[in-house]
Amino acid sequence: MISEASREIAVFSGSAHPELAEEICAQLGVPLRPAEVRRFANDCLEVQLQANCRERDVFIIQPLVKPVQEHLVELLLMLDAARGASASRITAVMPHYSYARSDKKDAPRISIGGRLVADLLTTAGANRVLAMTLHSPQVHGFFSVPVDHLHALQELAEHFRQYDLSRTTVVSPDLGNAKEASHFARLLGVQVAAGAKERFPDDRVQITSVIGEVAGRDVIVLDDEIAKGSTVLELLDKLAELEPRSIRVACTHGLFAAKAIERIGGRPEVLEIVCTNTVPVPEEERTEKLKILSIAPAMAEAIRRIHNGESVSALFR
Amino acid sequence: MISEASREIAVFSGSAHPELAEEICAQLGVPLRPAEVRRFANDCLEVQLQANCRERDVFIIQPLVKPVQEHLVELLLMLDAARGASASRITAVMPHYSYARSDKKDAPRISIGGRLVADLLTTAGANRVLAMTLHSPQVHGFFSVPVDHLHALQELAEHFRQYDLSRTTVVSPDLGNAKEASHFARLLGVQVAAGAKERFPDDRVQITSVIGEVAGRDVIVLDDEIAKGSTVLELLDKLAELEPRSIRVACTHGLFAAKAIERIGGRPEVLEIVCTNTVPVPEEERTEKLKILSIAPAMAEAIRRIHNGESVSALFR
Amino acid sequence: MISEASREIAVFSGSAHPELAEEICAQLGVPLRPAEVRRFANDCLEVQLQANCRERDVFIIQPLVKPVQEHLVELLLMLDAARGASASRITAVMPHYSYARSDKKDAPRISIGGRLVADLLTTAGANRVLAMTLHSPQVHGFFSVPVDHLHALQELAEHFRQYDLSRTTVVSPDLGNAKEASHFARLLGVQVAAGAKERFPDDRVQITSVIGEVAGRDVIVLDDEIAKGSTVLELLDKLAELEPRSIRVACTHGLFAAKAIERIGGRPEVLEIVCTNTVPVPEEERTEKLKILSIAPAMAEAIRRIHNGESVSALFR
Amino acid sequence: MISEASREIAVFSGSAHPELAEEICAQLGVPLRPAEVRRFANDCLEVQLQANCRERDVFIIQPLVKPVQEHLVELLLMLDAARGASASRITAVMPHYSYARSDKKDAPRISIGGRLVADLLTTAGANRVLAMTLHSPQVHGFFSVPVDHLHALQELAEHFRQYDLSRTTVVSPDLGNAKEASHFARLLGVQVAAGAKERFPDDRVQITSVIGEVAGRDVIVLDDEIAKGSTVLELLDKLAELEPRSIRVACTHGLFAAKAIERIGGRPEVLEIVCTNTVPVPEEERTEKLKILSIAPAMAEAIRRIHNGESVSALFR
Amino acid sequence: MISEASREIAVFSGSAHPELAEEICAQLGVPLRPAEVRRFANDCLEVQLQANCRERDVFIIQPLVKPVQEHLVELLLMLDAARGASASRITAVMPHYSYARSDKKDAPRISIGGRLVADLLTTAGANRVLAMTLHSPQVHGFFSVPVDHLHALQELAEHFRQYDLSRTTVVSPDLGNAKEASHFARLLGVQVAAGAKERFPDDRVQITSVIGEVAGRDVIVLDDEIAKGSTVLELLDKLAELEPRSIRVACTHGLFAAKAIERIGGRPEVLEIVCTNTVPVPEEERTEKLKILSIAPAMAEAIRRIHNGESVSALFR
Amino acid sequence: MISEASREIAVFSGSAHPELAEEICAQLGVPLRPAEVRRFANDCLEVQLQANCRERDVFIIQPLVKPVQEHLVELLLMLDAARGASASRITAVMPHYSYARSDKKDAPRISIGGRLVADLLTTAGANRVLAMTLHSPQVHGFFSVPVDHLHALQELAEHFRQYDLSRTTVVSPDLGNAKEASHFARLLGVQVAAGAKERFPDDRVQITSVIGEVAGRDVIVLDDEIAKGSTVLELLDKLAELEPRSIRVACTHGLFAAKAIERIGGRPEVLEIVCTNTVPVPEEERTEKLKILSIAPAMAEAIRRIHNGESVSALFR
Repeated sequence: MISEASREIAVFSGSAHPELAEEICAQLGVPLRPAEVRRFANDCLEVQLQANCRERDVFIIQPLVKPVQEHLVELLLMLDAARGASASRITAVMPHYSYARSDKKDAPRISIGGRLVADLLTTAGANRVLAMTLHSPQVHGFFSVPVDHLHALQELAEHFRQYDLSRTTVVSPDLGNAKEASHFARLLGVQVAAGAKERFPDDRVQITSVIGEVAGRDVIVLDDEIAKGSTVLELLDKLAELEPRSIRVACTHGLFAAKAIERIGGRPEVLEIVCTNTVPVPEEERTEKLKILSIAPAMAEAIRRIHNGESVSALFR
Repeated sequence: MISEASREIAVFSGSAHPELAEEICAQLGVPLRPAEVRRFANDCLEVQLQANCRERDVFIIQPLVKPVQEHLVELLLMLDAARGASASRITAVMPHYSYARSDKKDAPRISIGGRLVADLLTTAGANRVLAMTLHSPQVHGFFSVPVDHLHALQELAEHFRQYDLSRTTVVSPDLGNAKEASHFARLLGVQVAAGAKERFPDDRVQITSVIGEVAGRDVIVLDDEIAKGSTVLELLDKLAELEPRSIRVACTHGLFAAKAIERIGGRPEVLEIVCTNTVPVPEEERTEKLKILSIAPAMAEAIRRIHNGESVSALFR
Repeated sequence: MISEASREIAVFSGSAHPELAEEICAQLGVPLRPAEVRRFANDCLEVQLQANCRERDVFIIQPLVKPVQEHLVELLLMLDAARGASASRITAVMPHYSYARSDKKDAPRISIGGRLVADLLTTAGANRVLAMTLHSPQVHGFFSVPVDHLHALQELAEHFRQYDLSRTTVVSPDLGNAKEASHFARLLGVQVAAGAKERFPDDRVQITSVIGEVAGRDVIVLDDEIAKGSTVLELLDKLAELEPRSIRVACTHGLFAAKAIERIGGRPEVLEIVCTNTVPVPEEERTEKLKILSIAPAMAEAIRRIHNGESVSALFR
Repeated sequence: MISEASREIAVFSGSAHPELAEEICAQLGVPLRPAEVRRFANDCLEVQLQANCRERDVFIIQPLVKPVQEHLVELLLMLDAARGASASRITAVMPHYSYARSDKKDAPRISIGGRLVADLLTTAGANRVLAMTLHSPQVHGFFSVPVDHLHALQELAEHFRQYDLSRTTVVSPDLGNAKEASHFARLLGVQVAAGAKERFPDDRVQITSVIGEVAGRDVIVLDDEIAKGSTVLELLDKLAELEPRSIRVACTHGLFAAKAIERIGGRPEVLEIVCTNTVPVPEEERTEKLKILSIAPAMAEAIRRIHNGESVSALFR
Repeated sequence: MISEASREIAVFSGSAHPELAEEICAQLGVPLRPAEVRRFANDCLEVQLQANCRERDVFIIQPLVKPVQEHLVELLLMLDAARGASASRITAVMPHYSYARSDKKDAPRISIGGRLVADLLTTAGANRVLAMTLHSPQVHGFFSVPVDHLHALQELAEHFRQYDLSRTTVVSPDLGNAKEASHFARLLGVQVAAGAKERFPDDRVQITSVIGEVAGRDVIVLDDEIAKGSTVLELLDKLAELEPRSIRVACTHGLFAAKAIERIGGRPEVLEIVCTNTVPVPEEERTEKLKILSIAPAMAEAIRRIHNGESVSALFR
Repeated sequence: MISEASREIAVFSGSAHPELAEEICAQLGVPLRPAEVRRFANDCLEVQLQANCRERDVFIIQPLVKPVQEHLVELLLMLDAARGASASRITAVMPHYSYARSDKKDAPRISIGGRLVADLLTTAGANRVLAMTLHSPQVHGFFSVPVDHLHALQELAEHFRQYDLSRTTVVSPDLGNAKEASHFARLLGVQVAAGAKERFPDDRVQITSVIGEVAGRDVIVLDDEIAKGSTVLELLDKLAELEPRSIRVACTHGLFAAKAIERIGGRPEVLEIVCTNTVPVPEEERTEKLKILSIAPAMAEAIRRIHNGESVSALFR
């Protein structure tokens, strides 16, 4: 699968999500190279890449998931180690770039974390970045190195094609995300709707209506990520009034903080919660309603194309 | 007005909007220093700053308005000239940063112009930036130098306080901009509403409803900028069905391309078009319905505070 | 013609001189890849490179000719787009680098534009530069990336070899350029002469004599560029007194501002004006006396050698 | 205490050691400015500096202690926030720079963490660094910004001067640290000795003798830091054979991992363990034998001198 | 003389020309701070600045004269030392920047030394440069930091005003330098002439005539620098044929290699050789005909203005 | 020996140690490419690389030996020349990096020369560094580019294997270097010992004992470098008291300043002084007791592996 002519590929994983890294490597048909993380008595980390990096095309897979700071510093140490070990090119593969949410200065004297972390990654040695579904498209512009920005709509669409879609409507919790929902609906050949948020005099924002047809329909709620799930729960409240036939909830990044799986899945009208494996979900939090799709094939294909110099946009747009 | 203790201030203007620069300097009580732009036979530009910059706190005022490329290169040459002339600090004052609209990579193999131009300004010597109402808040993160990001809502609010506001609703053309509209409505103590856009299967987006109360009310349509005015015109169409008592249109950046003043002002229900002077409006395009508010006092106050080391956020948030 | 073993080449053109780019590509035997320039309502530019750049050896052809600022910003956007699109290497091909004339600080508080623009090109992503006949050789040192600096003397010499050269003298308008004239004369196996400028008390400079033999000879006036043509016209005045048998005028960069073709060609003693196509000459300005030589083969050969890692100096020195 | 003429000082603390920061500020006679650390649902951090930084001389106090990664990223966010808030100068005050121990590449494909973190701090906005007792003096050279490197020998000496020092010997666990021990002994006017380590064929290193006079003397064991305390315990074993009259243990950085206080203090011959407050020691781990000296006056004096432009080396060398 | 309000000035000298540094400091009314240069057994240099630099406005005086490489590395070490010692601003004062002669790439695969050394100075910590009579004006553009570029024409003119100038002509050895000669002649109110070089088929260049009036006149030959003096000697040969009444030779940088003083001064028609003290001339090489003018007052005045933030161009242009 | 598939290698030598460069090239089976060093009348250097560098993998061999400053600047000029000549990658090969001894700030207001020179090399164009036995391992961290750090213990061991090693002890002059001595002893399968230095109240350091068995044994004294040889001579004094059977002295870098060969070799008990050829030893200083081993095969093998992308650590650790 990997072109013969190219310099060799070497894929490493930090400790954030080794299962995903294993799966990506299996798809690529290359071994996952070992890396050893040590913690000193003074709590400092040391990471050793345990395979030759010299003149290799190095990929380091590390979503910035909880504990984020540990995983970030670990990634920075790995990038620097690969650079010092004479890697030919180093790609930071971040299936979930959590600092993308810190994308504006909405209070004085804060850092725009998404930009700062992008700069730290470059300082540490990242020559390029492979990311998935960044919180806002502008975050792409925070990086001074080339970014390949994937999405998981194909994977999600493939999953839902198993159902009868004749009366389905994709619903975006808010209009800001509606472009992605519309793209998704087109992939499925179904209708699209969106929650309309109203901003109250006290600057509180609330979903006060749903624009589009949902009554009696099979609804797929689509969001980019679900952390505490507050927005989705609010939308479910509003949908409840509109009497859809069924509800499924889908997202790319299933962070599921604050018992979000339990709180969303607890609603009897929710038949299914679908996410991808950009973020690891602990075994013990998984429920029967939770369905985790793998983006490993997509990430692997992107890595293969980056390595071989083939167009990535041709595939994912 | 300028603190005695500080190093001296020196304000220059490019050729984009000298009237605004003059007005800012009048507010500051400092002279606008002369700069001479020459064009060589080969069409290259040369700008000479014609006052001592050495150890001065230099501000160069230049909104990136049409012809944008000329004004951008002119600004870059001025920044570099100030640096070479030993300015102590150089602030690029851009009341309108037009490249902020190029803030994402929505097609393959394009530049994110808002980031590139931010980097060019730094290369040329800008130590900081003073901007107003950037197209999206994330653009702030494109700059690697400190940015003071002002808005003109106070000026717009002051203008509308002359009217009876008892039945007024501020309407944002889309929910993306609704936060600003809500902020503005709170300043006026009035209601807020927003156009709800629906995205059609062919990816066409259209305002299909207005969320909030507008019938029989005095509407102020608020947008950050009006270029061709297509969005505003679409909203006016939709509002027409809802029978408001009156309509006024307001924005910060009045670019008014493609006869936008004529097309919007031509609607009999539109009583007034209000913008600020971040962008110069040619005399011959102005109509009786057009009202241009000055942001010079606000810019001057920000410059004064930057120069004196006082909090800017305290003033404009 | 392009070595099989190398990564693929991809040549793009900005809108400054597409004919030259087409000709270079024809010489190289590779297609000119399409690029689309769009102008937004706010006058900002967007350029899309419409062919895969990933791991390609990208060349972007754009002489900085009138309108210089538009073409410069366009080039910067293209460089950044290629970088963001993961080009393996990016060469800015500038057959005419007009900002080279801004090479010193002959007045206080001006930018040395030739250095600033060199830095802007690097910021935007240029990894190397291919230029022709820079105004002064020191401009090479303004770039922090490798520069291949070609000249067009071979092309000019080839043209003049069609004539009887037995009584020919190459005349440089001033001694500063005499080294090039001498090189050219050696290529033709003819004599060389130069205008001697005298500097008057009021700092006015004027050609007051011609050093070398011109009476009764066939003169070729050689300059690096002709913009308004004042210097050449002055030399023609002086030559008129010396009664050469014939006069031909040659230069590399034919900018021809201020009706220079008309004013020079209007002299009956001038038999021919020869320039190259580094700069496009509008159809309507061309006259019978004007002869435009193509430097496309030379540029193509240099690109081929750069791409294949062969010596360029071996060819052009 | 702070010179009137200077721009204002603003001292902030991360969450690593607020008590120390409070004490330093009390010494300086300036308020500790508030900073609020928030943790989002996705585990990302946000830090808001809650006092004006504009044109201020900002100091951010944060020893890199456990949890090191959290405190490091927090510090980076604070530096960036101060820069974005137009601080005039930003000093990272790190009483304990734990990553200094990662100062060499003693295995292939690891990062030299001390250098990487130095670069990250600069990327985030640190203009200078104030540190205490770096693990090796070369670490100073890892920083590209000016470093003021203090030590705590004066504070430790002051403490021991309360005792009868007529029969005292300072013992360094190894000769590598002996220069500091010698310096310390000179301050006290006492003798110095050092453990001599032997390196065995299996590369195991062990203290096999003590060079210098210790029998019947009052020993002060001095090390730069105590983490697990293995080296000190080994030295205590060896000293036991040599029958000193008393033993006290002193260090600058009391990290005390793995119950080190208990294990060292548990030795009946150890009368006292003395450290400084560069690192916070949890209340519950403190014992009667532990004596914590404050380096806050020294840090405050250094900050005062940095702020006022007075020589720091004059004080601490 | 130095403004009270400013941060303190600190002037250091490398070992290249301490006499000049002493004289500049005497003019400024400030002490020359001591610096100690040590050479280790391995031939490496160490320079210690022996006065507080913290927050000082530091000037380091070092012309790049023979042995150039020793003096260059010494200067780099001093710049870095000043930066590490927290200097507020560092100016490299180079009365003679010898690497300016390496200003173009006239052979393949050489460095443009003038640009490289400029970059090295910036890397080492120079924030600005004060230079005198750079070999070509383009060299100014090699620096990425502000440069103040002085000349010594006022000093030279002052010297010659003691003579009867009624029949004087300033002669430039070549037309390239004629602008400076013309400037100089205007200062003296006298005529100007220039040697005209002819370039022969073998690329040899020779002065074949002198343009302007010299017969029976008092000639002042003016060049920017005299190293081996070949050009001046060639001009003297040519002048001999033209029978001037007297000849004096003047330059800014008197390098005088290869017994140039002896060879020029040996000509009986040469009454005087005048240079400045930008370069030290060994006592034993000085002759009665040699007159060395001091540029210390000019350098001191420039330093004073740089330090106080007053215009330098106002003085020297 | 050099892999066919790779881009071509090009090895150059500065003037510091051409014999070593020749030998390395002979080992590699590639020609040493010519470079010409010129010195101008003003004492500036120019180096021309006289073979095509374009897209080549360039190695420049230059130990920083006496005259260090000349060789350093020469190296910087060569690196810049290679970069400007479009080398694909440039490795500075420094068998002896003398500035590594300037690795800490042990006095105020000095430069950490080892860091500064590392930065200068990067500024001039070095993409990587190949060094041998750096004075301290932390110096590795001074470089921002990848470093391959070799040692010469294999070569030294190979030499000593010719002798009967049954009663041999390797002795390190101090414990700081003992790790290397221990490594060396393991290679030989012999015992290790070390001089123990005592630091006296006046900060004088002296070897006061030797830890380990040396009486009646064949001693090999091992140090990283010998300059003046003071430490070795002191150890020899101490060893004399302990009556070893024989003494041999070995080091990697034989700088041999201040007649060190004569002074060490003059001791009758010293049978042999062994060093490597990282540093050239003048013919006239060599004695019969001096044995110089070649590290050319090791350097050549490292260069081969760097060029071919094979692990270097695998070989030398």
